[in-house]
Formats: sequence, C-alpha cells, structure tokens
Amino acid sequence: MLNLNPYYKNVSENYLFSDIARKVNAYADQHPGEKIIRLGIGDVTLPLAPAVIGALRAAADEQSAKESFRGYAPDLGYSFLREAICENDFRPRGCGITPDEIFVSDGAKCDVGNIQELFTRDTSVAVCDPVYPVYADSNIMAGRKITYMKCTAENGFLPDPDSAGDEAGLIYLCFPNNPTGAAITKPALQAWVDRALKTGSIIIYDAAYEAYISESGIPHSIYECEGAEGCAVEIRSFSKNAGFTGLRLGYTVIPKSLERGGSSLHAMWARRHSTKYNGAPYIIQRAGEAVYSPEGRAQTKEQVAYYMRNAKLISEKLTEAGFTLTGGKNAPYIWMKTPGGLSSWDFFDLLLEKAQVVGTPGSGFGACGEGYFRLTAFGGYENTLEAVERMIGVFG
Amino acid sequence: MLNLNPYYKNVSENYLFSDIARKVNAYADQHPGEKIIRLGIGDVTLPLAPAVIGALRAAADEQSAKESFRGYAPDLGYSFLREAICENDFRPRGCGITPDEIFVSDGAKCDVGNIQELFTRDTSVAVCDPVYPVYADSNIMAGRKITYMKCTAENGFLPDPDSAGDEAGLIYLCFPNNPTGAAITKPALQAWVDRALKTGSIIIYDAAYEAYISESGIPHSIYECEGAEGCAVEIRSFSKNAGFTGLRLGYTVIPKSLERGGSSLHAMWARRHSTKYNGAPYIIQRAGEAVYSPEGRAQTKEQVAYYMRNAKLISEKLTEAGFTLTGGKNAPYIWMKTPGGLSSWDFFDLLLEKAQVVGTPGSGFGACGEGYFRLTAFGGYENTLEAVERMIGVFG
Repeated sequence: MLNLNPYYKNVSENYLFSDIARKVNAYADQHPGEKIIRLGIGDVTLPLAPAVIGALRAAADEQSAKESFRGYAPDLGYSFLREAICENDFRPRGCGITPDEIFVSDGAKCDVGNIQELFTRDTSVAVCDPVYPVYADSNIMAGRKITYMKCTAENGFLPDPDSAGDEAGLIYLCFPNNPTGAAITKPALQAWVDRALKTGSIIIYDAAYEAYISESGIPHSIYECEGAEGCAVEIRSFSKNAGFTGLRLGYTVIPKSLERGGSSLHAMWARRHSTKYNGAPYIIQRAGEAVYSPEGRAQTKEQVAYYMRNAKLISEKLTEAGFTLTGGKNAPYIWMKTPGGLSSWDFFDLLLEKAQVVGTPGSGFGACGEGYFRLTAFGGYENTLEAVERMIGVFG
Repeated sequence: MLNLNPYYKNVSENYLFSDIARKVNAYADQHPGEKIIRLGIGDVTLPLAPAVIGALRAAADEQSAKESFRGYAPDLGYSFLREAICENDFRPRGCGITPDEIFVSDGAKCDVGNIQELFTRDTSVAVCDPVYPVYADSNIMAGRKITYMKCTAENGFLPDPDSAGDEAGLIYLCFPNNPTGAAITKPALQAWVDRALKTGSIIIYDAAYEAYISESGIPHSIYECEGAEGCAVEIRSFSKNAGFTGLRLGYTVIPKSLERGGSSLHAMWARRHSTKYNGAPYIIQRAGEAVYSPEGRAQTKEQVAYYMRNAKLISEKLTEAGFTLTGGKNAPYIWMKTPGGLSSWDFFDLLLEKAQVVGTPGSGFGACGEGYFRLTAFGGYENTLEAVERMIGVFG
C-alpha cells in the first residue's frame, strides 16, 4: 500500500517566501529597466566578515592536504565549535548549558522544521499569530492541530500565556520576534517557563535574532530563566548575527535533563541527528568558530550595528511621515500598519508597482497579520534610504 | 497534550556507525600506543581535488565582497549546478531528466532519511537485508512496517522483486550496493521498474556509488530504464565520487511526471524543501560544479581509481588467503564471510583486539548480514595493505 501524506494539502501550495520571490521575479521580467529594492525576505546583504573569510580559506587549505583532511563530522558537531558556543553564548549569561547539549546543524530553519518529529501527531501545538511560517507549516504538514495565540497592537504583540490553552503540548516562541520585532522581558518569559513547568508543555524557543537586542532587561536565551532546562529547547542561527544565510550554520540546545514520560529529548534528537543528518561542513564549522574570535566578534558586531542603523532610519522616517509601526529596536524587523486600510497583499502589489519596493505582506504570517506589512533592515543603507523615500513619495 | 514519538523506541538506541565509533574510541583510549586502521565507516581519506579546492577559494572570495556576496540560495539549488548535473550525469546516458527535476541538498543521507515524510504511516516499505541502516531506521522511527528482502549468497545478493510482497508501496534499492557491493544489470533493474509501474509502488533508488561501476551493462541511473520517470526517485551523493563527506552535497531527482492519486511528488518535495530546508551553501554548490569541470572530472576519476586499487588489493589478497568474499568490482565495499563461523560482532571485536583493524559487522545491516563483515576501500593504500596483512596474519 502506498498513500501520499494527505496533510501537505492543508498548507498553501507554496512557502510564503517562494511565493514572494516568484511575484517579484515576474515583475522584474516585465520591467527590465526598473531598480527593485528588496526589503522583503530577511536575507543579509553585507559580505562575510574578514575573520570568517579567513577561517573558510584556512579550512579549505586543510581540506586540500592529506594530513589535515577531514571527512564526516562528529554527529553533534565539532567540539571546538560547541565549546566556543557555550563559552560565548551561555556562560557569560549565567546559563549552565554544556557543550554536549549543543547540536550543531546547517541552520535554524532545518531544526525548527524537524523538531516536531519527536512528538506524536496528536500533540497539540500553539504558535503566535502572526508567526514565522515554518512553525505552523511543519506541524500542519505532519497533521497536527494548531492553536494560534493572538499578537496584536492591543497586547503589544506579546501573546498571553493563557492563550496557548490548557491543552497546548508544544509551544513555539520567537523573541526578538519575527515578524513583529517585539521583544520579551525576563519576567514575562519567566512566566512562560513557569507555566510550562506546571503544565508539562515544552517551549521551542527561537532566538535567531538575539544579537539585535539593544535594551537591557531583555533575555538573550531562555536559559536565563529559572527552570528552563526542564521545559525548553532553544534554537539559534548564525544567519542574522554573522551573515551566514548563504553559509548555513545554526544550532539547537536540548538540555540533558529535558525528559517527558521517562524519555530523554536529548537522546531522541541525537538519534534523529545521527540517522537523518550528516553534520555541517567542516569548513563552515570553522567559519562559525571564527565568529567568536575577538576579530570576528568585533566585525559581526559592526554588521549588526549597520543593519540597526537601517532599522532606525526606517522607523524614524516612516513614523515622521505618519505611518504606524513598531519593532526595529531589538530586532531587524519593522512591523507597520498598511496605509489607508489596504489589505497586506494589496499593499504589497501597490508598493511593488508604484515604488518598486518589496516587503512581506503581514497576512502571510497569519490572520492577525492582515493589514500589516514587514520591512527588514537587512538592505544596504543607501537602498534602504531610497526605499523609504520612495514609500513616502507614494504613500506618505 | 504532549506525547513523544513512541516509534523511536523501535530502533536501537544508537545509530550503527555511532556505536562503532564509540567502541573504537574506547579501544583507542585503552591502547594509546597502537595504530588502528579504519576500514569501517565509508569515509574517504584522500584530500579534496585541486579543482574543488580552487572553487571553494574562489567562492569564498566572492562571499567577501559586497558586489558578489550571495545569501539564501534558490530553493532547489543554483541553476549552474543543476544544469551541470543534467549535462553530465543524465544526458550522456540518454536520461531525459531536466534541471528543474533536480533538488540540490546537503547530502544523500538527509534526503534518504526525509523522503519517507511524503507518505502516510500505513504505507508499506520494503528494504533489502542487509541494508544501509537509514532506509529502515527512518521508516521505523515514523512507525512504518518494514518488509525485508533477503539478499544472500544464494541469490547473488540481489533481491527477488517478488520478495517485496504485493503490498509494498515504497521500495528502497541501492546499486551498486552498500554493504554487499553487488551491482545490478539493466534487465534486472528494468524488471523492478516494470513491476513498480504495474503495482503502483515507488522505488527510492540510491545511486551513491555509481562512480565505482567498472563493468559495462550496469546502469548508472535508474532513468536508463524505460518508464522509470513514472515510478522512481533517485538520490545521488558527491561524497564518494568526489570525497565530499566533509563538505556535504547531494541531490535528489524527482521527475515532474511522478504522481500518485493526482498529487505530484515533485510539488510535495518542493514544499518540504522550501519549508524545512534552506539550501546547500553557495561555496559548496560551486565546489560541486567544479567536480564536473574537465580538471575536476579527471582528478576525481583518479581518486575513484585509487580507491578501487584498494578494493582489488583487499579482494585478491584475502581470497588468496582463503577468505570468502564478494563486491569490490563495481563498488568500494568488500563483503566477506567471517572466518570460522564467527558472529559479525565477535569478529569485529577480535579483529580490533588482535589486528587493530576496524570493519563493519554485517549484522549491523540486518539479520541476513549475520556472519558477514564489510570492509571499505576508502583507506590509504599503505594502510589498506597493512590491514590486510594483519588480518591474514591473525585469521589467514
């Protein structure tokens, strides 16, 4: 007997960003002379930092000599990288995460998409609305029921822990948030942890944008909260803090103490990793290590500052021009209301047509995103300035 | 509600090769002075070809400059690579595969492990016994029932198509075979295709070792068989033909015409790829492209020849010494009967203890592998020679 997974029919035919790429490419083909400015997909534009390039070159040299050649990587990642991660991302913040609780991967998106496999189909899932589509899509494709937790202007785009429902088994949180740019305070995140410890649910915490936190009192890791090792998995990315979107590197933290029903999630993820995955490339793990070197830290910090200058520019200019928006303070995303009550996609089309600027329709992130629009700070400064001026020219 | 996937308990706690690595590391720790020769895991030992290293360096340079920097890769892979794949791997063999039927990935193992997601849990699965563990493990972890098709000395290690059973929906085939090294002729593979077209089953064809085919009449791709576009998915790797075990690159072919029940497998895999995956690194896709350059082809062909010289050495010397073995002609694996009727793991332990040589116990690949042992040709020539001489010294 052979049957195709019927749940794929429950997601839209195309992934949101594939849809946008198709629309923009079609427009570009029809208007070959026009300069399109892309502030849609969260892709970086600055080249890789010199420290990262240096590490790539050195590792490629190693791979060219018999004595230093490396084949298959260790299942969980090279220890040089896992130690650097603990030393830099967790120890300074008082988190007791150890290197053997780190699983190196080829990017947060894969881990975010695959983690749901550890749970049964009848596990109930709660995600924010609006939300990064992968949390919802990957669970819908596996046949799970989703509860959407409303994030609106009224609640400051922060979901109410009770909105997860008593039944929620798996709760996805992303802070600083994609797409709204909202950040969560430590007491507010502690409330989520306390609730999960009480109900037995597990939090999948996506901290891909932690490098953009500029205010104090905002946790960079969920393990800054007491008891999180007993209820939380954290997923991190090198894409946004170090521009690795085209290099592919991320990691997932699963504390060894995270168990349910006598089964260790760490052991299960280790089994999945070794069975269905074969490690991130050696040269790219070396590039990741270089991000933590003194030069790498200084250079990638500068990149983040460059993008946050864009975020400030977008926020200030559009606010001045009368747009209503949020985000951009602790995140590289600006979440704006569409002008004139336009639907998100109508605004997308108009903006592309009249200003040749690409953003992401808020409704692509969920029903509560309708009437909103996401702009990213990942463009070049001059392009970002030009895009904002064009927007103001058309809609201001 | 939250429940952990119960089917993970139906696979052994560790992946086969993780188990072996642990045993060997423990031995090495206890015997620090001894030289262990590893002919176990199928990892290559030659450094990357100069053409590949050159492409890595050039691509790293591109990533260091703003004008040439590349972020997220296109969903299905860069067209320069997909076109090179079609031009070199399929067109010369008369296969009508087009670039938009190629999905570039970070390795065959991920694709092999993930492809089962496209099917329901009640889809019945047939795999060879012995078998590369990922086919069976990934399906057991998803709760599917497996039928094992016996591959024994009696049938020349080639499964009988009828042994898949009338019910088999998904059939995994790997030729040249890992672990037995058996190759399949075109008429024999055509019989599988014909059967699948008749019964509606789908063949997952793992052709990771096609570069090792030395005899004529052996198909390099299942699409050399008539009608295969209507029943087969093919998975390929850059690991063994070009030494990319540490670089991570592979691809999966899903013909656009491959449909079941009105649903396109191509569209489903595209949705999975875009939702749960974010592309192979740009620099590594450029390295893959370089494999198809005239220099790359010549250099990687030499690497394959180097390993096949090892295969010949192992086969000849061990046969001479009275061992019974097969494989090594069209594949980098030698499949030998353990001497003296030893169990596979007993032989593994003895060989490690007495000769400090590591192989893979046949029983790790399935029940029919009991009493067998796999040796790989991927070691250095001198080490391979030494390993064989040590084996003969102890067991010959």
